[in-house]
Amino acid sequence: MENGNGKLATPAAWNFTPNDTLLGLSALSVRGVLCRVKAGMVEDGVRPVVPMGNGDSSGFPCFRTPPEAEDAVADALRSGQYNSYAACVGVEPARRSIAKHLSRDLPYELSTDDVYLTNGCAQAIEIVCSVLARPGANILLPRPGYLFYEARAVFNGMEARYFDLLPENGWEVDIDGVQALADKNTIAMVIVNPGNPCGNVYTYEHLAKVAETARKLGIFVIADEVYAHLTFGEKKFVPMGVFGAVAPVLTLGSISKRWVVPGWRLGWIVTNDLNGVFQKTKVHPCSYIDVNNFISSSGVFRSGLGHGVQVVDSIKNYLEISTDPPTFVQGAIPQLLENTKQEFFHKTVNILRETADICCQKLKDISCITCPSKPEGSMFVMVKLDLSCLQDIKDDMDFCFRLAKEELVVVLPGCAVGYKNWLRITFAIEPSSLEDGLDRLKTFCLRYNKPKK
Amino acid sequence: MENGNGKLATPAAWNFTPNDTLLGLSALSVRGVLCRVKAGMVEDGVRPVVPMGNGDSSGFPCFRTPPEAEDAVADALRSGQYNSYAACVGVEPARRSIAKHLSRDLPYELSTDDVYLTNGCAQAIEIVCSVLARPGANILLPRPGYLFYEARAVFNGMEARYFDLLPENGWEVDIDGVQALADKNTIAMVIVNPGNPCGNVYTYEHLAKVAETARKLGIFVIADEVYAHLTFGEKKFVPMGVFGAVAPVLTLGSISKRWVVPGWRLGWIVTNDLNGVFQKTKVHPCSYIDVNNFISSSGVFRSGLGHGVQVVDSIKNYLEISTDPPTFVQGAIPQLLENTKQEFFHKTVNILRETADICCQKLKDISCITCPSKPEGSMFVMVKLDLSCLQDIKDDMDFCFRLAKEELVVVLPGCAVGYKNWLRITFAIEPSSLEDGLDRLKTFCLRYNKPKK
Repeated sequence: MENGNGKLATPAAWNFTPNDTLLGLSALSVRGVLCRVKAGMVEDGVRPVVPMGNGDSSGFPCFRTPPEAEDAVADALRSGQYNSYAACVGVEPARRSIAKHLSRDLPYELSTDDVYLTNGCAQAIEIVCSVLARPGANILLPRPGYLFYEARAVFNGMEARYFDLLPENGWEVDIDGVQALADKNTIAMVIVNPGNPCGNVYTYEHLAKVAETARKLGIFVIADEVYAHLTFGEKKFVPMGVFGAVAPVLTLGSISKRWVVPGWRLGWIVTNDLNGVFQKTKVHPCSYIDVNNFISSSGVFRSGLGHGVQVVDSIKNYLEISTDPPTFVQGAIPQLLENTKQEFFHKTVNILRETADICCQKLKDISCITCPSKPEGSMFVMVKLDLSCLQDIKDDMDFCFRLAKEELVVVLPGCAVGYKNWLRITFAIEPSSLEDGLDRLKTFCLRYNKPKK
Repeated sequence: MENGNGKLATPAAWNFTPNDTLLGLSALSVRGVLCRVKAGMVEDGVRPVVPMGNGDSSGFPCFRTPPEAEDAVADALRSGQYNSYAACVGVEPARRSIAKHLSRDLPYELSTDDVYLTNGCAQAIEIVCSVLARPGANILLPRPGYLFYEARAVFNGMEARYFDLLPENGWEVDIDGVQALADKNTIAMVIVNPGNPCGNVYTYEHLAKVAETARKLGIFVIADEVYAHLTFGEKKFVPMGVFGAVAPVLTLGSISKRWVVPGWRLGWIVTNDLNGVFQKTKVHPCSYIDVNNFISSSGVFRSGLGHGVQVVDSIKNYLEISTDPPTFVQGAIPQLLENTKQEFFHKTVNILRETADICCQKLKDISCITCPSKPEGSMFVMVKLDLSCLQDIKDDMDFCFRLAKEELVVVLPGCAVGYKNWLRITFAIEPSSLEDGLDRLKTFCLRYNKPKK
């Protein structure tokens, strides 16, 4: 900046700014990386592009959302009752029906007040990170993982620390690693189940261990369940909220994935918190003593909120100064949840099972790619790239850039999920297109195959 | 926080945190204040509630959005083409049609790339504040004004400074005040035209002065034009973008007000910047020298972005880690802009003119309320409360709380727009309801009238 004399002041004070952070973080976002991957791609008018890069199958006819879901939104729109601003927590009937919907998988009943509507799960992540962040605090994130968490945490001045998911063990959480990472400034840990990018589905027993670990450490669990019920292996989906009496859980979800409508922008934050930990910090806002720790009946939980602001109040406060999900989509939720036929869900899961099988089968024939763990949920598989088998390929980014350019096949380089020289492959596309894409991937790998000496 | 010995460390370091800020700011948000105003209100089943508190007329039949707007959204929804995630800047046809739509009022053509779609104008404000904020920077805001700007600025660590709007002068900007407030850390000034909460409409000449002042100070203009074209007085709406060659302007807008659909969540940020100032900071990101100032052909503009990040890139970066507006509403925009009949806009403006007249006429009969400037745009009028005429009323908040409780009439206390002991009255409601509400307001004031000694 200019100082009084028209000269530039020392820029040391400007060393860190959120904007610089933004630059670095967005460069690593899935969208940002895919943009770079596709930069050299020119459609040839012959072969179609095969999009195995992002987690959005809504463009494929076989994944089209059912008419009853469209009807619900169209009816709400046509009613004229939902053109207005909504309450910042969301409209009451939608919150109530989501509470009821999620309670089916829980050993207790959620209440309407446990549910906060958000503009998709992305905004749910933004809100949770904004609410829990404070200088000096840290949050524990899974690696590989969805870097959006880091972006929002760091943008709000919170440190992101990574624990490992164990590829040889179905991408389970490295519990010892979590314990080693946590310290007195740790606020929460994030688990994604069913997993993006790993396709993992966690057992009841594993989730119980996660909850017990959080209880012991006195931290919150943020359970990203945006892929809830999209499971097609042996393991059934178990919501983290089942353990809401062991540790306080913030469950994040949306209609984006199960109804295949990410563009409709309707998500939620749910408090699964049988001991009322999120509401227990009751200290005068002006007091500076004894406000950063509080005792719940099941252990010491650090609210990270200081000055007696409750987690729940802080969520509401942030919602007051945030944008909302579209009101008529909120208005459509009760009808959408009630009317969507089970056949649609079955069909989706069957296609996911089929495409996951095709994917794993075809990958077996590609020698430079190994799949440590067959996906059982979500839309993705994480596979390891053996660069030593390939010539002229520098890294995962280079691999994906050339693959897009030469074969019109888009795959996400592992660097975008914090896992260098791996790939995240989305199999949730039209089966015929998937086969075509994987064949081209094989051709590509053969072309770059390093000759044996 | 606990230190190693299990004792509480000194909390001095935790003195300021975003979350504490959140608490205070949301308490002053329009939503937050209205919530407190209505806390004591119990519907009596006889008199209907008269909602003159917020800027949302969508619930009234006379303001209902036209069928062609609903058709546009329903068609986009039913097409199945917009269920997916959108590009973070927004879908291309929507950006193009907004550029064309806004260019009609400009002496030059906007390009598609000048337009960024947002989740309503609220998210546009959030994005602009996040992008421009950095520690030490300040932003100049109008008083009275919409406190959401302060909330988002302060949440991102930027200082909010207030310049006055002059009630006796049609709520024009106090230009001298702006010049006195600005210093080397000032990034931008905000003007709201047509004005919320003042109902002002600025002349070409006044906007030219604002632009010239910004040029002289080397700051950006953020022009909040969410009420664009909702003018019903002598003055025609002039977009700030007309002066995009004098000073770089970020124009914020949305379909919320003109189409009376705030719940549809579609807004925009537009760069009106004929000299390309927003794109001129071309310094290597690792250089720490000479990056916080840059020369445009029309003056020195402080980018406030440091390290050579361009404003435009920084907006894109932030959009990469932000939630999006609903894709099918984006998809509906070309049809909505093209098909909405002028009759609808005429009708809306005519009702606003009629209700503004009713409002000003009826307020003349209430001795403790004075209106310094008749509104010519938006949906609001700011009026002064003379507490010396009233007994037992402490302040504007107390006035509004009792008015809501006793008369079921909701009006916004001036404190919510930074103007203590004034009121913001929304006249954009059904005319018969407005008359009823103002009659009850008069009854209320007479009841609390201080007897002359």
